[in-house]
Amino acid sequence: MNRILFEPGEIKNGIATFGGARARHVVSVLHGEVGQTLKTGEIGGKIGTGVVVAISGADGDLPEVSVSVDHADESPRPWVDLVLAPPRPRVMKRLLPQFAALGVGRIVLVGAKKVEKDFWGATLLKEEIYRPLLIDGLMQCGSSILPTIEVRRNFRKFVADELDLAFPESLRLVAHPCAGSQPPPSGFGRLLLAIGPEGGWTDDEVALLEAHGFSRYSLGARILRTDTASVALLGRLMP
Amino acid sequence: MNRILFEPGEIKNGIATFGGARARHVVSVLHGEVGQTLKTGEIGGKIGTGVVVAISGADGDLPEVSVSVDHADESPRPWVDLVLAPPRPRVMKRLLPQFAALGVGRIVLVGAKKVEKDFWGATLLKEEIYRPLLIDGLMQCGSSILPTIEVRRNFRKFVADELDLAFPESLRLVAHPCAGSQPPPSGFGRLLLAIGPEGGWTDDEVALLEAHGFSRYSLGARILRTDTASVALLGRLMP
Repeated sequence: MNRILFEPGEIKNGIATFGGARARHVVSVLHGEVGQTLKTGEIGGKIGTGVVVAISGADGDLPEVSVSVDHADESPRPWVDLVLAPPRPRVMKRLLPQFAALGVGRIVLVGAKKVEKDFWGATLLKEEIYRPLLIDGLMQCGSSILPTIEVRRNFRKFVADELDLAFPESLRLVAHPCAGSQPPPSGFGRLLLAIGPEGGWTDDEVALLEAHGFSRYSLGARILRTDTASVALLGRLMP
Repeated sequence: MNRILFEPGEIKNGIATFGGARARHVVSVLHGEVGQTLKTGEIGGKIGTGVVVAISGADGDLPEVSVSVDHADESPRPWVDLVLAPPRPRVMKRLLPQFAALGVGRIVLVGAKKVEKDFWGATLLKEEIYRPLLIDGLMQCGSSILPTIEVRRNFRKFVADELDLAFPESLRLVAHPCAGSQPPPSGFGRLLLAIGPEGGWTDDEVALLEAHGFSRYSLGARILRTDTASVALLGRLMP
């Protein structure tokens, strides 16, 4: 946790009071004391600093921490959105904090042909499960802008009917391995990156995306797992 | 497994015979049949194709597969070496296959100040534990050149005494977050990338690396976990 983030409802009269993992982090990892300054922020809002004003709970108890916050700075903004054919839930669970940390804004999960059907029943798709994972990623990287997750099982319908309205300005790339690697593009405002399932996009799916303004983008001939490819691509394309 | 790799000793008179996970993959995932062509290769040697000549073992038994191989092509070569302050063994275990898949050649594990001391007792440092993880990464990406792992707990001594001899020609970069992200360098022959521990390099350590020809390289202001940063950096820097 490089920045402690609070839900808007946790801040009252400029004081954030919190327990749980964040409080334990402040007490055990940061060796928090009254008067100590921390990097803080409000989820979906501004970031800044907080000063510890109270720590309750004796040794062994669960601590509760109160911090007087001053949030006046803008958070780093997301720079990329994903059209993602989801990998297995176990892999996805590991990826979500990384996506948040790397600056992803919107994640649209699409039903590409090779997505495993039982993915769509995963508990990971419940907001109460995925939201804390995204917040973990934000607290790691220092941003406060929470990514959103949307589900569009009908991939073709989403691309044909919704994509232009939802992402009118973005540079569109579809990850698709081929012989050579490409240099990162420059000068784009925002990026929309389509990442296929573990077995890859079908030819039809790539053709559909190309028909809707996506260019193929490759890291070269090495075939990477979805999780490696996603993070490697985001690192490569980051402006 | 996008390429089935064999130990040199497994290939006799042009026939590779193997059981275990690779055989199960050929039978269950690839629905292998006699006559089927597979992508194959020899660890540390050439790559090419193999034709299934025999599958033994009835349903429920562990299958054994024999493949007639023709290995005449050069594997993709590694393009980067790492000076790595190792993260926790659990994280490292996940990273090793990804390093192999992304084209890492040599991994020198160094005792930076903030490396957790008990890392050095991890079973992961035994070749019989880490070698299969690296081979998994190679079979994923399609290369056959096995990364090597060396341990240099005395970081300063390694940098001062060994580094110039070991990596005379490489472009040297040290990952170090700062306000702006940098474009990937181009035109280098081989890269040597120094990646710090979870808590970062100390100022002294960065100064030491800079004194030995390393330039700071940053993905920007977002603070990333070692595993995310390593994969993101390799994706960004990949030629």
